[in-house]
Amino acid sequence: MPNFDDFVAGNEEFVATFKDGDKPMPPARKALLVTCMDARIHPEKALGVDIGDIHVVRNAGGRAVDAVRSVTISQQLLGTTEIFVVHHTDCGMLTFSTPQLQGIVKDRLGHDDATHYHEFSDLEKSVRDDVALLKASPVVRPGTPIRGGIYDVRTGKISWLD
Amino acid sequence: MPNFDDFVAGNEEFVATFKDGDKPMPPARKALLVTCMDARIHPEKALGVDIGDIHVVRNAGGRAVDAVRSVTISQQLLGTTEIFVVHHTDCGMLTFSTPQLQGIVKDRLGHDDATHYHEFSDLEKSVRDDVALLKASPVVRPGTPIRGGIYDVRTGKISWLD
Repeated sequence: MPNFDDFVAGNEEFVATFKDGDKPMPPARKALLVTCMDARIHPEKALGVDIGDIHVVRNAGGRAVDAVRSVTISQQLLGTTEIFVVHHTDCGMLTFSTPQLQGIVKDRLGHDDATHYHEFSDLEKSVRDDVALLKASPVVRPGTPIRGGIYDVRTGKISWLD
Repeated sequence: MPNFDDFVAGNEEFVATFKDGDKPMPPARKALLVTCMDARIHPEKALGVDIGDIHVVRNAGGRAVDAVRSVTISQQLLGTTEIFVVHHTDCGMLTFSTPQLQGIVKDRLGHDDATHYHEFSDLEKSVRDDVALLKASPVVRPGTPIRGGIYDVRTGKISWLD
C-alpha cells in the first residue's frame, strides 16, 4: 500500500503534539455536519472547529440518505441538536448517472449492479433535497434546526442557503 | 442555531488564508479512508494529509455497510486504489444495542423504528468485519488493498491491525 508508511509517519507526528486526550464522547458544540467525501474538503478546518466539537458524517455527495442512521445515534445517544448539510462545487456527483456507473461496474467487475448512486445534476437542489429528507425523517427529532450550504473548492468559502 | 455565527466566522478565517483552490477532483494519494463521525477524530490531521489528498467517508462507527456506494464511486470514477478502515476507542457504538435505540426512538419520537444501527461489542472485530465486508463486496474492485486500524482517542495514535 503506497500510502501506508506516510500515514504511519504522519500519525507519529500528530501523536507527538497531541493534547486533546481528555475530550468526552458527546460533541461539545452539539452539532452534526453532513458533507461529501471529496478530498478537497477538510471540514473541521473549513468551519474552524476543534477536536471534540462536532460529529462529521461524510459520503459521496454528502447525501442524507446514507446519513440518517448516524443522525439518529448522534441525536438520541450523544445529544446533538442541530444539523448542517454542506455539498460543494465541482462535485463528482454532477458528472455521471446511475445507469452509466452500473454499466462501468458491469464492464469492469462483471457484476449486475443495482445500486442507486444518488448522483445529482443541480447542486443547490441536492442540498435542499437532503435538508428536506432529514426534516421529513421519522427518526430525526422534529423541529431540529437544519441548515444547508455549498462549499466552493476554489475559494474555501461556504455559502449558506436561506 | 447556536453554532451558525461561529461557523461563519471560522470559515471566513479559513478563506482568508486559503491557498488550495487549484487541486483536482481525484484524490492525489489515490486512497480512501472509512472512519467514525466521532468529534474527537480529525482524520486528515491524524494521518498528516493535505487538502486534495484522500477521500474520507464517515458515519456512526465507521461502518462499511454505509460506505460501499461511496467506495464504488471513489474507485470507478475517481481512481482510488487502496482503502483504510479506522474505528476508535471509547466509541459510542460500544454502548447500546439496536433494540435499545429502537425503544428510545419509539418512546421519544413515537415511531416504530426498524433501523439496524450496526453497533458492535468488540472493537477489533468490528474493524475486521468491515474490512471483510469490503473485500467480499461485488462492487469493490477485487484485490484492493484494505488495511484496518484503531484510533486511540486518548493519545491520537492509530494502531494498525495485521
